[in-house]
Formats: sequence, C-alpha cells, structure tokens
Amino acid sequence: MFKIDLNSDLGESFGNYQIGMDEEILKYISSANIACGWHGGDPMVMDKTVAMGKKYNIGIGAHPGFFDLMGFGRRNISASPEEVKNYVKYQLGALMAFAVSHGEKIQHVKVHGAMYNMAAKDKEFSDAIAQAIYDIDKDIILLGLANSEMIESGKKIGLKTANEVFADRAYNPDGTLVSRNKEGAVIHDADFAIARVIKMVKTGRVTAINGEEISIKADSVCVHGDNPKALDFVRKIREELEKEGITITAISDFIK
Amino acid sequence: MFKIDLNSDLGESFGNYQIGMDEEILKYISSANIACGWHGGDPMVMDKTVAMGKKYNIGIGAHPGFFDLMGFGRRNISASPEEVKNYVKYQLGALMAFAVSHGEKIQHVKVHGAMYNMAAKDKEFSDAIAQAIYDIDKDIILLGLANSEMIESGKKIGLKTANEVFADRAYNPDGTLVSRNKEGAVIHDADFAIARVIKMVKTGRVTAINGEEISIKADSVCVHGDNPKALDFVRKIREELEKEGITITAISDFIK
Amino acid sequence: MFKIDLNSDLGESFGNYQIGMDEEILKYISSANIACGWHGGDPMVMDKTVAMGKKYNIGIGAHPGFFDLMGFGRRNISASPEEVKNYVKYQLGALMAFAVSHGEKIQHVKVHGAMYNMAAKDKEFSDAIAQAIYDIDKDIILLGLANSEMIESGKKIGLKTANEVFADRAYNPDGTLVSRNKEGAVIHDADFAIARVIKMVKTGRVTAINGEEISIKADSVCVHGDNPKALDFVRKIREELEKEGITITAISDFIK
Amino acid sequence: MFKIDLNSDLGESFGNYQIGMDEEILKYISSANIACGWHGGDPMVMDKTVAMGKKYNIGIGAHPGFFDLMGFGRRNISASPEEVKNYVKYQLGALMAFAVSHGEKIQHVKVHGAMYNMAAKDKEFSDAIAQAIYDIDKDIILLGLANSEMIESGKKIGLKTANEVFADRAYNPDGTLVSRNKEGAVIHDADFAIARVIKMVKTGRVTAINGEEISIKADSVCVHGDNPKALDFVRKIREELEKEGITITAISDFIK
Repeated sequence: MFKIDLNSDLGESFGNYQIGMDEEILKYISSANIACGWHGGDPMVMDKTVAMGKKYNIGIGAHPGFFDLMGFGRRNISASPEEVKNYVKYQLGALMAFAVSHGEKIQHVKVHGAMYNMAAKDKEFSDAIAQAIYDIDKDIILLGLANSEMIESGKKIGLKTANEVFADRAYNPDGTLVSRNKEGAVIHDADFAIARVIKMVKTGRVTAINGEEISIKADSVCVHGDNPKALDFVRKIREELEKEGITITAISDFIK
Repeated sequence: MFKIDLNSDLGESFGNYQIGMDEEILKYISSANIACGWHGGDPMVMDKTVAMGKKYNIGIGAHPGFFDLMGFGRRNISASPEEVKNYVKYQLGALMAFAVSHGEKIQHVKVHGAMYNMAAKDKEFSDAIAQAIYDIDKDIILLGLANSEMIESGKKIGLKTANEVFADRAYNPDGTLVSRNKEGAVIHDADFAIARVIKMVKTGRVTAINGEEISIKADSVCVHGDNPKALDFVRKIREELEKEGITITAISDFIK
Repeated sequence: MFKIDLNSDLGESFGNYQIGMDEEILKYISSANIACGWHGGDPMVMDKTVAMGKKYNIGIGAHPGFFDLMGFGRRNISASPEEVKNYVKYQLGALMAFAVSHGEKIQHVKVHGAMYNMAAKDKEFSDAIAQAIYDIDKDIILLGLANSEMIESGKKIGLKTANEVFADRAYNPDGTLVSRNKEGAVIHDADFAIARVIKMVKTGRVTAINGEEISIKADSVCVHGDNPKALDFVRKIREELEKEGITITAISDFIK
Repeated sequence: MFKIDLNSDLGESFGNYQIGMDEEILKYISSANIACGWHGGDPMVMDKTVAMGKKYNIGIGAHPGFFDLMGFGRRNISASPEEVKNYVKYQLGALMAFAVSHGEKIQHVKVHGAMYNMAAKDKEFSDAIAQAIYDIDKDIILLGLANSEMIESGKKIGLKTANEVFADRAYNPDGTLVSRNKEGAVIHDADFAIARVIKMVKTGRVTAINGEEISIKADSVCVHGDNPKALDFVRKIREELEKEGITITAISDFIK
C-alpha cells in the first residue's frame, strides 16, 4: 500500500500580522511545520497552532529558522554550525513546551527557508541540525530535502529521516533541485505536477530535467496555504492521490 | 538542621555583550536562574550556562522575562495574563532543550524583573505563570517572592513553591518588600543584612520596618554577581551561614 | 471656509507581512502617519510609503511607537520620559531620511498606540514628545488628541499643534475620550458618526456622553484603512464632508 | 603638512550592556563612527555618544550595520542592494536626529562589520551605500576601505571619500587587505605597525605582504577602544604620529 505525507508551513503569523490560511489547509494536510518565533510565529500563535494541529490530528513538527523576522528567515546568515545547532535547540524546545501543554509530541523537525537551503548543501550545517535534534529527542524525525546532506546527516547520527519532495520543482540528474533561477525549474501545470508526485510515490522515480529517469524517495510533499490558489492545489493533489489509492498520512505512521 | 539556598541570575550576556561574573559566582551559589533569550541570554550563552551549572552541580532554573532586551526585562509591559503564560512556556521550553542536551533537569522557574514585580502583586499574572509551569512539568519548583501572590498561585495549582528572601531589603509588617523609593528600603550594612538572613532561617522571623516581628519563610536568598563587591558579599554570606551551621543547598534538596 | 484633515496610519507592513490597504486609502486622506520601524514598518516599507504619499500629494507624518512589534506598539511600556524623547527622535530621524530622499518634508508627528494613550494623560510624557520634535525641527506640527496633554505640551514649547478627533468615539464632558470599556464609548452608526464630525468642524462643538454640549477643536479626523468596511467609511465621510462644503486638506494648509 | 584622522567605533553599548571605553578613547581620536541601533547602540546611547563627540570636538559619523544584535552586525546577511540602501538611510537618518538635536552635522558614514566587508568587494552593495548617503546629504564623506569598491562607488556618484587604512593589517600587492585567516595577515608588533602608518602618511606607500612597494592613500586610521591594551596603542600611535609632525585631525578638515 502506498503512503505519502502532505506537509505545510503553519503558524507564521506574528502579533497583529496575519499570514497563511492555516485553518483551511489543516483539513487537507497530514503534517504541520510550525514556526517557532524566530522567522515568524509568536508564543500566542504557537499555542494556537499546536492546538489546531491536535484538533485535526496531524503530525506536529518544529520549523526553526534564522532570527530574521524582517527577512522572514529567507536570507542566508553566516552563522557558525555551533550557532545553528543551538538555534535549532532553542526553537525546538520552545515548541515542545506548547506540544507538552496540549498533550502532544513533536513528530518532526523541518528547518525553514535559508536554514533549509544552507543545510541542504552544507554538511557541517546539516550535521549541526541533526545533532541538535538528536541531543533533545532521538525519536523525532528529521524531515529534509530528498537526496540532500540533511538526510545524510540524519541517517549518520541515527535519526529517522523523511524525504521531502516538491511537486512543482524540476530535479537535476543527481537528484538535487534545479535552481529557481534556471529555465524550467518551476512546474506551472498543476496536473503535470500531481502526476509527477504520483509517479514518485508509486515507482520511486522521477524524470530529471535532462529527461533521465532517476531514483527519488518521496515521503512527504511540501504544499502551501498562503493563498486561495495554493489551497486549491492542495485539495486537488489530495483528491488525485487518494484516487490512485495512495493514503495520505503523517510521516510517523510509516517512517520507522 | 537548617538549610538555605543561594540563587543568582546567570547567563544574561548576549552575543558580543558580556555581563555578570558567572564563572565566579557559580562557586558560591546553589541555584542558578538562567536567562532564556528574551531579556538577556542567547542560545549560545544558554548552552554554556547550563553546562557551567552542571559542572558546579547546582540547581538549574529558568529565568523568563519580557521580550525587551533594550530594557533588560525591567520595564512593565501591559501584556495579558494569557500572553504572559505563553511567554513563560516559550522560554521555559527553550531552556529545557539545553538542560536535556546536558542530561539535566529544570529545578525551578523564577521569573525576571518586571514580570517578577508584576506577578508578585497581580493574582491573574501569578496564576498565569503558575499555570505555565504546571502545564509543562508539575515537578518544577516555583521560586517566588516570599509572602507574595506568586507563592499563593503556585500552591493553589499544586506546584512546589520556594520562598525567596532578600538580605538587603526591608520588609513591611504584612511581609511584602518595602518599596525601593521609600526611606530605609535598602539595607547597606553587609553584616546586618547577613544577620537578618540567619535570623530568618533559624527562627522564621524578621523585624519589619516598623519594628514589628513578623513571620517569613526563607527558602532561598537572592544574591548577585554583577560586580566584585556583590561577589564579596556572596562569599561572606556563604561563610557566615555555614559558620552558623546552616547548609547551603539547592531548593530541590529540601522543597518537597 | 471650513477645512479638515483626514489622517490615517500607513506603512505598518513589515517584511513579508502585509497589513492595511494603503494604496486604496491614500486616495481619500490628506495626511499619512507613517510607521517608523518600531511597532510596524521596515526601511523598505517606509521608502515605499513615503513615495506613495508623495504621489498622492498628501501630508507626510512620522508615526513613532514603542519597540514592540509583537504587541504592535499597543502595549504600555514603563519607559522613562527621557527614553521616550529619544525613541521619538530616533524614529522621526529615520523617516526624515526617506522624506529627504524623495524631496519631501515631514509635515507632522503623531505618536502611535500605547505611546499616544500614555502621552494623552501624562504631562511628562507629552512634554518629552514635544521636546523631541522641537529639538529636531520646530516647523513640524504635533498632531495629538484634542483636549489632551499632548496639545498642551506642544503649545507650551512653541510647536504648531493639530487637534485630532475621532468620528466613532464618545467624549466625556471634559473633552477627553470615553474609555473603550465603558458603555457607549464607540459609535457604531456611520451616519451619526459623520454628522458629529460635521458639527465639530462647523460649530466647534460636540455632544458629550452625558448630553452636555462641549467645545472641541477639530483639525484632523483619524480614519482607518485596514479593512474594506473601514475604507467604505472613509469614502463616505469624505463625500459627506465635501457635500457640506468642507475642504479636505492636509493640516499644513491651515495650521500656521 | 601631513594630516591624518584617527577613527574609532563608538556608542556600541545597548540597554544594560556596556561595551567599549568610549569616554577614554574620545580623548585621542579625531572621528567617531557611532552605532545606529541595529548592530549596537540604542537611542539613549546614541544621544549620549553624540553629546560626547561634540564635547571632544571630533567628527561625528554614522556607523550603520545589519539588524543583527545577536551577531553584532558581523555576520553576512544575503540582503539585496536595495535593502542595504534603505538600511543605511534609516540608520543615518536616525543618527542625524541626535546630531541635529546637539547642533552638530554628520561628518561621515562608515558602514559596520559584515556590511563593510561585503561592500568592500561587491560593487552593487557599495553603489547602494553610496547612493543612500548621496540621497540624504551630498556633503557627507564616505569613509571606506582604501583601494576598495566603496571608494570607487563614492567617487562615481560624486561623494567626498576618505580612505581608511589599518595599522595592524598586511596588504596584498593589489592594495586589498590580506585575509585574516592567512599567515602574516595581522601585525602584532605595535612599533612596526605605527612605523607603517607613518610611512603611508608621509610617502603614500606601504610594503605589501610579498615585499612589493605599493601605493596607498591613507586618510584615516581605524583604532579600537574596547580594551586597555587597545587604548594604549591609540595613545602611542597618536604620540608617535605627532612626533613625526603629522597633525591628527578630522577628515572633514582635509577631505574637500
């Protein structure tokens, strides 16, 4: 039986600022990456978002990023691996407080934005992140970019890892994502994007940008809920995956 | 046998900014209130401070405050009790991450600065703080101002509580602290201050500012390590207490 | 000839967070209070908002607040008057940089949120704010709550002052605003609210909550653009004021 | 007659955190680079530092950096040139408010830390910084690394520029600084360092790390006041320069 997780970034509102259609997307996803106050989110938002995740019975994950609200955590900061390790610990611990308060456990950690991109390519960074999680709770799953350093670092230290794939992104022959500023990097046709995901789940393969068939392990698909169009896509991909007999379920149900 | 705890605020450095003689004072105290990144401290400092606390085998406590680095958490902010509850959870969780990483447990929570002063007098605030701790770990001790709302709130919800006293402050007949802007509020004579603490520990009584003998429960004395003179006082009070046969030990050793 | 200014808070977006329908409301107002990065706004937003204000030829004002993005500057902070003075200078200077870049002058300063409420009642605070403006540019108008300490402080030091009134708020017999948590404090009927403003402008009088007719000087009406309904009200009040022969124009056109 | 400026970073304290021996070093330098609240400094510190600069009659400069207090502005952030331009404007404007309050003018801008290093090499960055200054006040001098993009950008747009040299750093044959992680990058002998500066001032030449004699224009020497040893060096270099008949004076005295 085929299984896949749909994950989305949630709880990125801050104070008076609202962002994301969290209540809406929660009905369609199986795992939430909850902002931990540094690139978005504040303690009130974190508390509310964990409560919503519990209500919809989805996997609750921490989504730590750089302390850069002005840049929404999307800008590289030349922090040291040691700093990044402690930044992840700090934010993961903070979210755990809300999870514990609601009788929930943290299912996974997926780092955010620039931290994600830096960790995907930089072994020292990804090792630091894996170490942070491992030091706090060995049972937490590291959700990282398929075929990236993050997955390697998680495996090496002894964490469970889940491979994240993108429905709307092209892949290089080596399994990495085609850089956004290259022609063909983003797939705009929704049906084609969904068909690619179905193929990934059922066959463990995807067609790279050069036409080559390559291996890819797809445990979780990243989806967005920041606008109505994105939400439509989530509804559709969920429907199509289910039609294909693929069960949408949190990564903790099948990553052991 | 008489026992007392000596607690001090630690880990309040931030980034490039150094504050406090943490390494020095750690040798003389039995419990540390570690800043959690909001009024002071950053994840690097928190990690280092927890490690030092472990090295010296003292009780590790969280010291959450308002998100006001510019005011060092010493300025009242008209946050709601619900906000304060979540602020305490966030910071306590963050420190727990570092405690867990070092194989340590959080012994206590003592809120910082303006949050402490507001909670001492405002029942809704103190209830919110007690609730925050209780929701996360019922075994954590609430360290609060003796005879204040904090202790009441902690007891009511079912937390263990520890009464903090001040060697250098005068007390009102109702057991509250004499406001700093009143004549005689601060005791400048070190020997007299120490004698008062010894009396509190041995007899459970202190002479209020009006000369009246009042009851006071002294579980922990707040001491400072932010300058050499403060450090001298800590050395001296420790010496004098021990001469009197009073054991200096972490609150978790005698608060059950 | 009757003249009135319509002012609105603008440029309160921050980084990835959008707030307010700035482009829309700019068509209907005559003065903008532009956030200066502390309670909202960031340098990119400030630059863009000043450019928009210039495009629509409206009065550009600074809208400084407390450094409390999490609370959107709406929470009282027990800062000293000296601190508040320097906070206003800092933010006013920062906005002036963008005004100068666009060949514009700062017309006025209206402090934000909690700073506004504190200054309305606290003479030391309002003096500090007036001093801040005076020290930087004596020609800048202080826009403050009608009948409040702010106006007094501005006059005393020698600044031009503009009286702000609220269409949807009830007034006490002494000319102060009825506190929001009292019955009848907020006027929900748009037509009634507009009629009150017209009366204020034409007669310099308003009916207080106890039925008494009191004096009020109305130089500027505060309007909002944070939701479509608020925007409808702005369109309507503008239309009705113009029907009554009242010219809507920036305060610098008639405050001398 | 030979002239040189001695500049130092000042006003980097923040809230309760003290850093730098500002009062001491002010007696020996001729220009101050004053932090503007983003990497250090707060409005209270800025006000006080401008007042001290005025008291000692030295050139007052703005020292803007990245919004990264945790990293003290020393970490690269992948901001866009447009963002950097507005960040410089914001901070320069903020400092101007305090300068105007004290009847002073801003003599120069020297960007801080990571922003300085990025601008030295990245033309788009240095152009953005020069543009920011130019848009606000064409008379402000851009103080930048000798032989770097910063000086080029300043000249190109029409700003006055001042070349900063380092007494304790080795130079590459192309006039750039030898990277700190290379052997011989830092000169530890104070006398040798001072002799190099004297030679730069008198002959416009310096011996590069490979032994080659290269041209260098020295308008200002960067000195530090963050510890007693650094302060000793400042006293000594001042003394030695004066012995050689070199006048120590603010850059505005000779950069036209």
